[in-house]
Amino acid sequence: MDALKVQLLLTGNEIMSGDVIDSNSAMIAQLLKAIGIEVQRKVTVGDELNTLVNEIKTITQQADILIINGGLGPTIDDMTAQALALAANKPIVRHPQAMQHLKNWCHQRNYRLSEPNKKQADLPQGCEIIANSVGSAVGFKLTLNNCEIYCTPGVPSELKLMLEQEITPELNQKIPEHLKTSVKRMQVFGIGESTIQKLIDENFPHWPSDIELGFRAAMPLIEVKLTSRNSQASKLAEVWHRKIVALLGDHIIGENSTKLNKVVVDLLAKQQKTITFAESCTGGLIASQLTQVAGASQVFEAGFITYSNNIKTALLGVNEKILNQHGAVSEQTVLAMAKGALAKSQADYVVAVSGVAGPDGGTTEKPVGIVWIAWGNNDILNTCCLYLPGNRHYFQHYVAAASLDLIRRMLISSSESAYYLEERKFKAKFSEKQ
Amino acid sequence: MDALKVQLLLTGNEIMSGDVIDSNSAMIAQLLKAIGIEVQRKVTVGDELNTLVNEIKTITQQADILIINGGLGPTIDDMTAQALALAANKPIVRHPQAMQHLKNWCHQRNYRLSEPNKKQADLPQGCEIIANSVGSAVGFKLTLNNCEIYCTPGVPSELKLMLEQEITPELNQKIPEHLKTSVKRMQVFGIGESTIQKLIDENFPHWPSDIELGFRAAMPLIEVKLTSRNSQASKLAEVWHRKIVALLGDHIIGENSTKLNKVVVDLLAKQQKTITFAESCTGGLIASQLTQVAGASQVFEAGFITYSNNIKTALLGVNEKILNQHGAVSEQTVLAMAKGALAKSQADYVVAVSGVAGPDGGTTEKPVGIVWIAWGNNDILNTCCLYLPGNRHYFQHYVAAASLDLIRRMLISSSESAYYLEERKFKAKFSEKQ
Repeated sequence: MDALKVQLLLTGNEIMSGDVIDSNSAMIAQLLKAIGIEVQRKVTVGDELNTLVNEIKTITQQADILIINGGLGPTIDDMTAQALALAANKPIVRHPQAMQHLKNWCHQRNYRLSEPNKKQADLPQGCEIIANSVGSAVGFKLTLNNCEIYCTPGVPSELKLMLEQEITPELNQKIPEHLKTSVKRMQVFGIGESTIQKLIDENFPHWPSDIELGFRAAMPLIEVKLTSRNSQASKLAEVWHRKIVALLGDHIIGENSTKLNKVVVDLLAKQQKTITFAESCTGGLIASQLTQVAGASQVFEAGFITYSNNIKTALLGVNEKILNQHGAVSEQTVLAMAKGALAKSQADYVVAVSGVAGPDGGTTEKPVGIVWIAWGNNDILNTCCLYLPGNRHYFQHYVAAASLDLIRRMLISSSESAYYLEERKFKAKFSEKQ
Repeated sequence: MDALKVQLLLTGNEIMSGDVIDSNSAMIAQLLKAIGIEVQRKVTVGDELNTLVNEIKTITQQADILIINGGLGPTIDDMTAQALALAANKPIVRHPQAMQHLKNWCHQRNYRLSEPNKKQADLPQGCEIIANSVGSAVGFKLTLNNCEIYCTPGVPSELKLMLEQEITPELNQKIPEHLKTSVKRMQVFGIGESTIQKLIDENFPHWPSDIELGFRAAMPLIEVKLTSRNSQASKLAEVWHRKIVALLGDHIIGENSTKLNKVVVDLLAKQQKTITFAESCTGGLIASQLTQVAGASQVFEAGFITYSNNIKTALLGVNEKILNQHGAVSEQTVLAMAKGALAKSQADYVVAVSGVAGPDGGTTEKPVGIVWIAWGNNDILNTCCLYLPGNRHYFQHYVAAASLDLIRRMLISSSESAYYLEERKFKAKFSEKQ
């Protein structure tokens, strides 16, 4: 048997007009890809009944599976059920199971079940209900022209749960054993895509052909994926996954959707330690990333944003002589900032950063994109100087990520040297006047 | 003459797989909408030659205009030119004008023009070049089945310029005078979509039918758009635009894509004033938003992130008695934080915030979502207590936006009262024990 032919039909005037960027179809494609199904084609149209009916008729003649997204709501422009009924030549009937779902949903929320809401239970005769564990609109399923049609809600959170809980498990059973896929995802920081590819080419010249290596840039992280295209390859993929883990070592932040800020908060919490930040060029970004994490207050008490020289002195006690002699963007200054922040906050760990975010303020010796970072604790303080040219947004976000990563490496007692400390190191040029 | 029938064809395995979320089609739709053209349908397919050829043939039989996006690059999976040549039954030829563009492009960058790059000049015979002012790949245009086909690059920045500079001006000339459209966009903060709609319904019961009022939520801002569908309505729209401006007053941050952080930095810079922040529940987010703006160092020297009570005392001199008596989330505490931050930073303006971001830490009297804000200068400090239930991300971003907005209103000497100060005001319930 061949691979399943899958198409998507997206409906909605707001995605047609570009008022809303469609991310649902990417979500569907990713969740299907994780079980080895590739979407072949997608069509997007506005809320127009005849157009919908025609698209449904055409696609069901080409595909094994059609997933329709959107148009399940209670308003006049939600017309998926009606379009499907017309395409399949079935009457619309009030579906008892959908009605019961609506009643329960309203009851739990103390809402009155209004007439417009009841419309969500009016579905094509003979369709099967797909449970919606969070929203009022159930999904539904019907076969037409030997094509199975899944109608799904447009609200992303509802769509996601319906795909994960109902649709992908069902589709997974339709995939022949020899085509079943599995995916291993790793989040990696501080080593470029091309460097990873080069390392793999050098270390594993005989990479197995049925394990696909993929990268996705999610600045400043990179997601590395191993996809195995059948059940035999799945077992093999575990072996190669371990090889990749050994190769990339502590550059791997974690599996699946792990994020740097969460990893650092969790490590600190587990070790019952606290952290503080002294930020110049990142202007509070590092602290704000850490405090996005619920429970950050367990590990974080104070942060210092010291943009000007005066404030570095007044707030963190950075000696004016250091600033005058070495400048704000210097090893001596970030070390003094780090020491000051540790003393003032009584935290266990610290990161201090000072750099030139740009677009202005660069010089030949200290160009836009240069940053000094000091990190450590009362026993040991390390420093590095990185060069991250690009734009202000990229610079600030890379510095924030590197700051969290350097602390992460300290907290896991990593003995490896991070690639970016060498690859992104600033190599000072002598100014032309010297 | 009727409205133009426009369809889009998007190509690329990376958008098909969901590795990349397609935002180009939304950009195209928005830029066309601004000149009064609505996209009717879009089809997305992977990089597969036969599929592309078939889609081109089918769409050109239905549409007046087809915009193809993607597949103009130098690699093997870029096949738009080849597909179009096959669909139109034309040979591929090396196009002198495209070749000249490639030579100039490489010369300016000191690149060698490689063989794969030259492929970008191999185009269907008889096509017209569309200039690309930034990238190496030119666009091109061909007519098939009475449908004009525009082939455009997948890189968003190149696509945007090509649409703005070349394609929309050309399409604009094809629109009959009575269908020409213009759009006025305003960025609004602190007043909900339904409230705006209600205000307009109440104040302007006779809203003209050929001026369309639209909203787009860009949390925490709302974009309000006035679209006029013909040249007569355009003049009328100017009158109604002034009425909306008068109605929404200082809730309007600015026109087009204005952002709060940039407005505040510009106002402070113009008045030669500086600002500081004392942040508890936002953990540095307000300062990081301000310092995203290039040139923020002119108006910002210091920020204080004081998460714990000890640090509020140690860093900002908040009296321990205040904290013990009223708690960290109280009017007295944010006032003391604001005064401390002004004194320590010597800044002219200050915002201090303290709240319960959640998901934990709420009580009956001070539930998750409550925040106290103090803002002002050495002469006057104001306070408010808002209630912003939802999730941590929403809460932190709304508090940051409100903080910047309250300062903005002070800097423009606004005499209006902001809607959200009333609508989002926390109404304390007495705890059940009292």
